[in-house]
Amino acid sequence: MAAAPASKSYTLPTPLPLDSGQVLDGVEIAYETYGELAADRSNAILICHALTGDQYVASTHPITGKPGWWERMVGPGKPIDTGRFYVICANVLGSCLGSTGPASLAADGRPHAMRFPVITIRDMVRGLVALLDGLGIERLHAVVGGSMGGMQTLSLAANWPDRAERVLVIASTARHSAQNIAFHEVGRQAIMADPNWQGGDYYGTGQTPDKGLSVARMAAHITYLSEEGLTEKFGRRLQDRPDGTKGAKSFGFDADFQVESYLRYQGLSFTDRFDANSYLYITRAMDYFDLAEEHGGKLAEAFAGSRARFCVISFDTDWLYPTAESRHVVHALNAAGAAVSFVELSAPYGHDSFLLDVPALDRVVTGFLS
Amino acid sequence: MAAAPASKSYTLPTPLPLDSGQVLDGVEIAYETYGELAADRSNAILICHALTGDQYVASTHPITGKPGWWERMVGPGKPIDTGRFYVICANVLGSCLGSTGPASLAADGRPHAMRFPVITIRDMVRGLVALLDGLGIERLHAVVGGSMGGMQTLSLAANWPDRAERVLVIASTARHSAQNIAFHEVGRQAIMADPNWQGGDYYGTGQTPDKGLSVARMAAHITYLSEEGLTEKFGRRLQDRPDGTKGAKSFGFDADFQVESYLRYQGLSFTDRFDANSYLYITRAMDYFDLAEEHGGKLAEAFAGSRARFCVISFDTDWLYPTAESRHVVHALNAAGAAVSFVELSAPYGHDSFLLDVPALDRVVTGFLS
Repeated sequence: MAAAPASKSYTLPTPLPLDSGQVLDGVEIAYETYGELAADRSNAILICHALTGDQYVASTHPITGKPGWWERMVGPGKPIDTGRFYVICANVLGSCLGSTGPASLAADGRPHAMRFPVITIRDMVRGLVALLDGLGIERLHAVVGGSMGGMQTLSLAANWPDRAERVLVIASTARHSAQNIAFHEVGRQAIMADPNWQGGDYYGTGQTPDKGLSVARMAAHITYLSEEGLTEKFGRRLQDRPDGTKGAKSFGFDADFQVESYLRYQGLSFTDRFDANSYLYITRAMDYFDLAEEHGGKLAEAFAGSRARFCVISFDTDWLYPTAESRHVVHALNAAGAAVSFVELSAPYGHDSFLLDVPALDRVVTGFLS
Repeated sequence: MAAAPASKSYTLPTPLPLDSGQVLDGVEIAYETYGELAADRSNAILICHALTGDQYVASTHPITGKPGWWERMVGPGKPIDTGRFYVICANVLGSCLGSTGPASLAADGRPHAMRFPVITIRDMVRGLVALLDGLGIERLHAVVGGSMGGMQTLSLAANWPDRAERVLVIASTARHSAQNIAFHEVGRQAIMADPNWQGGDYYGTGQTPDKGLSVARMAAHITYLSEEGLTEKFGRRLQDRPDGTKGAKSFGFDADFQVESYLRYQGLSFTDRFDANSYLYITRAMDYFDLAEEHGGKLAEAFAGSRARFCVISFDTDWLYPTAESRHVVHALNAAGAAVSFVELSAPYGHDSFLLDVPALDRVVTGFLS
């Protein structure tokens, strides 16, 4: 991947304590903001990004040149209305778009690489809360996130219960299941099997584990889409051959099927914008996530101190974090006496539905934030 | 993997024509038999194996030393009763347990490797039918198969409709879906990304693409198990640490979770018994499988000439080849006026249910074969 681009950046004034017991000095948090902070600082919304997301929620990605990853949701007059709200989105700790992560330089002037401490979702949120402190925002109008972003919103609600009035959790879970862990482990093994990984010390060698990272992304990408969605989008349709033959089998190992070509492209293009070690660390954090375990084994206990309003949204075709996981969160919130609304939306795109054109999602988000 | 072990072997007397238009000379089919062939040759059952299966259906695997892969189903007094039936199971074309495949020597004395022609499920069945010819078996009492074995039974029924009286299809499909193809493509890319793959020319180099093949197996293995089964078997339980610590997170990248350790073992042990190029060729054959396409786009046409009795079995937790795929086959059989019984069995093990302890399966198999 190319060098991390310039973004707004905040250097934490004090060392960041981590769940592992280690401490990180001089943590930088790269972030973007949209809209204007009200004089009484009451209109801030923190958006938490997913595994391979970043702070460019509604502005052009500096490496890919693509629009922000949630421009359909965030902007003037949009459900997260930047004409009304001050929107903050920060690159999470451990990532590679400007915030401190494995590619960052350690005290000895060399990249941390695998010397970077293993972090947790709560550690990421610690970094975000420190940023809010730095920005002088005591209490958010809302914290919002999908997928891993939803884990962060739940962690913030549980561990910093006074920091957000509204908590919006989309296509997420309070714990990573065995199957979730299994898919991540395949991705990690694919990266570590790449000889270019070099034990993580590939920075500056010109040899990055792109093939391993690409395979990891391909495997993960399948879990983001529904079986129905894949069938509708690609079915068994064949690629046109380079020689112009229309949709014929090659009886070879080129990408005959459109779905093969699509996945290969998804894998390869990902390596342009993401660091393999960050992928290892962030998937590990997600696998470690079990909000109940942090609170004596009872998820309801996690929310005992919360006065926030919650909204939990799942998608009927999401098999990565299926509706049952959202229902599990909602039951715990009910048991804790929290104010919560819950909806399962129908959308054909699987887990990725939260990023795509689902008008019902827009309506729920608009209503909850107003 | 170790050298292919001795098994019964049949050398096809004539060249084998393939769907690609190519022809294979001197094809060998390695097989095992159990029980005695009746004087009138009426009691033969052909069992077709799955992707990574082999001919050792009810006898010890010569490399792993493990019991046959379907010993619970095949043997004296068992549902496929070798006291009564003459059971044949052959290693499919393209595999690596004695039948001709990419590791076999070509005419120039060197292994075919990627010069081996891309084969199809129908080509595999062509090889099996040639074996039946060689054994003098005109008509099978039944052809039986699960997963890819079920694809072979469907292909035999469609293309050689007089060769089997009964056709038993378990946990299978008449076509590979986009999601099925996608998972296989991840596996193939993992193998080809391994520098030891060397374009397939790794035979005799002492450098085999074990890491790539292991990742491919890990990804595939997840699809063989149900989410519920994984949760029940492993949940989020942690491994005991090498230093004796009971189930604590390492805050590192060792296999903390039991499911990680299990998957790593499944991946690594697979490389002892399977050839990476065979994995490429057989997954390709499965991806190409679309029985309707072979018959003018109408699946019912595939069965128009059949007088066999069919039994189709699916499992409620199988998300690799879900019940909808079996239902699709059954609808086509109904449209073709074939005699068919269909049952969806309840079992917690996902796709692998057909190999595991499901007493209801035993009863259906026993009844259908009697």
